Amino acid sequence: MGGSFLGRILKISTFGESHGESVGVVIDGCPAGLEIYKWEIEEYLKRRSPVSKFSTARIEPDNLKILSGIMENKTLGTPICICVDNKNFNSSDYDELKEVFRPGHADYTYEKKFGIRDYRGGGRASGRETVARVIAGCIAKKFLSELGIDIQTYTFSINNICINKIDCDAQKNFLFMPDSTTFEKTVDFLENNLKNDSVGGIVECKINNIKAGIGEPVFDKLDAQIAKAVMSIGAVKGIEFGNGFDCTYLFGSQNNDQYYFDDVVKKKSNNSGGIVGGITDGGQIIFRAAIKPTPSISKLQSTITKSNENVQIKINGRHDKLIVPRAVVVIESMAALALMDQILLSCTCKLESVKKNYLERG
Amino acid sequence: MGGSFLGRILKISTFGESHGESVGVVIDGCPAGLEIYKWEIEEYLKRRSPVSKFSTARIEPDNLKILSGIMENKTLGTPICICVDNKNFNSSDYDELKEVFRPGHADYTYEKKFGIRDYRGGGRASGRETVARVIAGCIAKKFLSELGIDIQTYTFSINNICINKIDCDAQKNFLFMPDSTTFEKTVDFLENNLKNDSVGGIVECKINNIKAGIGEPVFDKLDAQIAKAVMSIGAVKGIEFGNGFDCTYLFGSQNNDQYYFDDVVKKKSNNSGGIVGGITDGGQIIFRAAIKPTPSISKLQSTITKSNENVQIKINGRHDKLIVPRAVVVIESMAALALMDQILLSCTCKLESVKKNYLERG
Amino acid sequence: MGGSFLGRILKISTFGESHGESVGVVIDGCPAGLEIYKWEIEEYLKRRSPVSKFSTARIEPDNLKILSGIMENKTLGTPICICVDNKNFNSSDYDELKEVFRPGHADYTYEKKFGIRDYRGGGRASGRETVARVIAGCIAKKFLSELGIDIQTYTFSINNICINKIDCDAQKNFLFMPDSTTFEKTVDFLENNLKNDSVGGIVECKINNIKAGIGEPVFDKLDAQIAKAVMSIGAVKGIEFGNGFDCTYLFGSQNNDQYYFDDVVKKKSNNSGGIVGGITDGGQIIFRAAIKPTPSISKLQSTITKSNENVQIKINGRHDKLIVPRAVVVIESMAALALMDQILLSCTCKLESVKKNYLERG
Amino acid sequence: MGGSFLGRILKISTFGESHGESVGVVIDGCPAGLEIYKWEIEEYLKRRSPVSKFSTARIEPDNLKILSGIMENKTLGTPICICVDNKNFNSSDYDELKEVFRPGHADYTYEKKFGIRDYRGGGRASGRETVARVIAGCIAKKFLSELGIDIQTYTFSINNICINKIDCDAQKNFLFMPDSTTFEKTVDFLENNLKNDSVGGIVECKINNIKAGIGEPVFDKLDAQIAKAVMSIGAVKGIEFGNGFDCTYLFGSQNNDQYYFDDVVKKKSNNSGGIVGGITDGGQIIFRAAIKPTPSISKLQSTITKSNENVQIKINGRHDKLIVPRAVVVIESMAALALMDQILLSCTCKLESVKKNYLERG
Repeated sequence: MGGSFLGRILKISTFGESHGESVGVVIDGCPAGLEIYKWEIEEYLKRRSPVSKFSTARIEPDNLKILSGIMENKTLGTPICICVDNKNFNSSDYDELKEVFRPGHADYTYEKKFGIRDYRGGGRASGRETVARVIAGCIAKKFLSELGIDIQTYTFSINNICINKIDCDAQKNFLFMPDSTTFEKTVDFLENNLKNDSVGGIVECKINNIKAGIGEPVFDKLDAQIAKAVMSIGAVKGIEFGNGFDCTYLFGSQNNDQYYFDDVVKKKSNNSGGIVGGITDGGQIIFRAAIKPTPSISKLQSTITKSNENVQIKINGRHDKLIVPRAVVVIESMAALALMDQILLSCTCKLESVKKNYLERG
Repeated sequence: MGGSFLGRILKISTFGESHGESVGVVIDGCPAGLEIYKWEIEEYLKRRSPVSKFSTARIEPDNLKILSGIMENKTLGTPICICVDNKNFNSSDYDELKEVFRPGHADYTYEKKFGIRDYRGGGRASGRETVARVIAGCIAKKFLSELGIDIQTYTFSINNICINKIDCDAQKNFLFMPDSTTFEKTVDFLENNLKNDSVGGIVECKINNIKAGIGEPVFDKLDAQIAKAVMSIGAVKGIEFGNGFDCTYLFGSQNNDQYYFDDVVKKKSNNSGGIVGGITDGGQIIFRAAIKPTPSISKLQSTITKSNENVQIKINGRHDKLIVPRAVVVIESMAALALMDQILLSCTCKLESVKKNYLERG
Repeated sequence: MGGSFLGRILKISTFGESHGESVGVVIDGCPAGLEIYKWEIEEYLKRRSPVSKFSTARIEPDNLKILSGIMENKTLGTPICICVDNKNFNSSDYDELKEVFRPGHADYTYEKKFGIRDYRGGGRASGRETVARVIAGCIAKKFLSELGIDIQTYTFSINNICINKIDCDAQKNFLFMPDSTTFEKTVDFLENNLKNDSVGGIVECKINNIKAGIGEPVFDKLDAQIAKAVMSIGAVKGIEFGNGFDCTYLFGSQNNDQYYFDDVVKKKSNNSGGIVGGITDGGQIIFRAAIKPTPSISKLQSTITKSNENVQIKINGRHDKLIVPRAVVVIESMAALALMDQILLSCTCKLESVKKNYLERG
Repeated sequence: MGGSFLGRILKISTFGESHGESVGVVIDGCPAGLEIYKWEIEEYLKRRSPVSKFSTARIEPDNLKILSGIMENKTLGTPICICVDNKNFNSSDYDELKEVFRPGHADYTYEKKFGIRDYRGGGRASGRETVARVIAGCIAKKFLSELGIDIQTYTFSINNICINKIDCDAQKNFLFMPDSTTFEKTVDFLENNLKNDSVGGIVECKINNIKAGIGEPVFDKLDAQIAKAVMSIGAVKGIEFGNGFDCTYLFGSQNNDQYYFDDVVKKKSNNSGGIVGGITDGGQIIFRAAIKPTPSISKLQSTITKSNENVQIKINGRHDKLIVPRAVVVIESMAALALMDQILLSCTCKLESVKKNYLERG
């Protein structure tokens, strides 16, 4: 329990069932004085809801309420609570799911864990829960941008179609794909294959312009923290940094990133993905996460009921057939949150800088 | 900072530089009454040091000292401190590394973070640090075995040679490979390719006989916790659960694990790797981790010094050319620790079981 | 930062400025299946607002919103978010305080810490923040009552008038004093002394029917955890357990609580206040907390402005002249929260009980 | 469980039974670059063992071993492990205590909690455990002194004899009393009253030269954190800040500390004890802690055995009759640790200072 709390300096706690009153987040530990506007969060949230024929018909106006922690568009240093009411839903869609466990969903595992569950649309295991992550992520991203750090996240592949180049703004198409040719090819593929089924894909995230020396040794390595944060998104089944699983095909002499100095410290390659020993090396942080196909499909599937009867189920209602583009901003948010936490921690790692910080206090 | 602390109920803290006095671990939160013998830990630690011509010549007797928490071979419920002295090392091997950053190692990143570093063999970023993880892991594994839970971990691939079947006891060969044909093929490969270089590979871990309902929702999902624990091992660059990255090639109808009841609840497939929504579904937990080739190689490499001079470096001294088999027990240990923590948490998730536990107290 | 998060198994995070949109709490880690009604929380909250001529005229309807975690009046095991809107306030009362630091309030210290503050009524340092504590406390108290544990908290003294006996229901008078004679004497005192001034007092809390063996060793001793929880209430300046500071006047032979067996284990005295070595001994837990006089008074006081000018200030607006009775339920709540957390932890301290709990899972 | 871990940025974990192999501490999160010598810790530890006829005859050479985290007398930023072997003890003194619970000790409560205990001298509940606190405290105090912060701690009273003035160096007499007249009076009292008995007293701690703005709001208030840290010392039964319990006798107009500006911000009084709303106000931090009389006395006492027999017990062996002076440095250590943690946190509370710290990184 306590699974809805995250972070050490930047602490967040999220709440809300998919079909309860609200979903939201409390963010504690954000430094005071960060400028943040409601519309910025609303804009960022929109990236979670790209409109297409493959997405859920559930339209969430996502009407933000800032309950605390921000005054006159500046953070106070106190807990920021932001929530969104759940308005546009039809719980009766879920009535038949009260006794049946949907394959690929967490219905069965929640029942086993808690002995009780909110059967109306997945409860805390619903994708709706990620609204809270994205709200918090927006604030983290704003903080990072104050330090000059930039994050780019996009769809890397859908099913077996993978981008080959980056030639357009990923944010401009509904698949969030930065390769215009692959985008069109993928649209064709989706048109022909998603009638009663769903697909998955891979999301790639790049963090640019980060200084060397951020992250912790041993258990709290920056890649370990990002891995936890990203793997905690319901649909993610794997994560890899730098050249990732492909590093196993290389020899050490090929995989090592050799340093050289040319005005600044540079590396001849970036197989590490910008992190060595859990700490940034000044190179671009790069990682990929695998997103499973969404489990809600209208094909007939075998499953069981709460009383262990064997039954067949066909899932109706409004569901995404393709969740990869929606996951892009969620992954970006989790990476931003993990990184912000580590940057705040990094303020405390050298005596000289702690001393300076303390002695400068008014 | 504080990166050397892990866990919520089962808390561990590790300490020790590679060439300092000792490496060790404090384990707090282990239930009282667990039987554990010194020789059990020593046996388990041996799996970290398979002897072969491809391994380091540094022989570590790993002479265990149990400093606290165990009396008459039973845990007291109080912190268990176990450490191992660092005896067999030759720091002068490292004298030339005082000013130079080894590619692929954390020398540069530690220097950037702390402004000071233990240059004698990697300090906390050394593989030596994993001794403490394995000691703690042994206790976690013993605890899990008390509940009937079993863990099997082995080498899945080395470079591009992958196992095809499981036909022998992985613990019986020095590569910890459960496929006898692949083992021989791999030995040939290593004979021919490791002269001045090193290789990586993939480790697979299976956890059997675990009940459904273990793990937390949202951020503390069991797969997220295992991912963090395993990714925190220095050489790991990626992790995937169940069918992992391959799930992205499947349609939802192929990827969903359908339930049926046949005396007990079963699933037609195990693409999930035993975890749905962060909580066990009663199936086998299965994951794979990618291990990069060890960075210490005797080939000439470019790098820089502390004063930003461009230099060439050739790493001498006793180094592993193949760390994958040594990583097997470390990965198993981290998985066991993450799982034990979540099982202890699971004692508190239902009112009825908390009530029963409390009311039965003497 | 992150100061608004509390607890290890039962985790809470609170939010809300005194004059912001809402104040509220997220409670994570409450076991699933606890029955809780909205009206129960509303009733409990009323104890925070005893009506009298010495209290603030700010009437807070405290209209509760349960945003998550409870379905059909049962906890789901997921985060419970409950909040209360801030409706009845007049921020213009505070306009003159924008530039001036009120003595005894946290205006100056917040400004020094964050460099920015919500000047409208104390922000997070306002007594209004305790609404969130009491909401969470109500749930903790309900949980404890499920285990048969009962808490009684009351006003022990006001200024130098102290109770001598317990002869009435403390909840029935507006001072929450269990001694009817002292109650009347105190009312007289207040009538004559509170014109432009305020008073403090002592609150006593007794926890009955708790089993031995609850609490942790070393840093997380039950008394240390209760002390932290209670001392974190703004107005509390001291806390003592059992005979408290008076133990220093006794010899060891007088202070030791001697055990004897008479059907059950009993003690000849309870100087320890029910806790030895941080763990309950089966006796009544008893502690007292000192509440300082409320700092908002209408007498003229010296202070400074943000630009360090020396000025005189007279605090107008609606303020409590006596906060002791209002603190009673806040102290009870913090004790209940600390105790509930430790009881949940106690589920994990013996191998045999963990094993039993795990093996009984469905 | 996990009760032996403390702190958020500066994390410590302690280990060791009184009569086990060693007692020690792991300190993680101490900034890199702090100069610390072994002899400094040894000197500081001596304050824990003032020699007198009223102290235990157990002479502990306290032979320090620094196992990690310090190289060439500077902290590396990595975990510092320091331990002390338990050499001079005679466990056979405790053989008769295997079945009997000593009144005032934690024998009974540990047995109830864990179902198993180290009966040799109190295990983790022994005063011996505080060695680890003092080692960590020494490092915290050194850190604070780098920032110009100074801590003075001394015996305030023993039994009913209290200091009246400060006229000598408290560290120079074995009672650590800063009032020479009271010291002599107390020695007389002890000579006449400690034959078979023990006494308690009060320790006072003052922290000087601390800037305003340190500490957290809400639950992690600086006074709450110090209260937890100090109350977690076995013998402490109460704590109060500033005028403490006496604040309840004052009116608000008397208790409020009024500010004025005279070159710097000053206060007309320091009833707050330097902390308002959990955050330092720039005044001296001052608190007092009540120490109970040591429970080991050679007078006959009633108690029970593990099998609930009523028996009489007389405690022999080497025991302190007066633990107050020994507690002085332990209380100072816990206050230093709590304060250091909060100062490190304070580096992260303002965006401007985080930004500056980050952008200055090499």
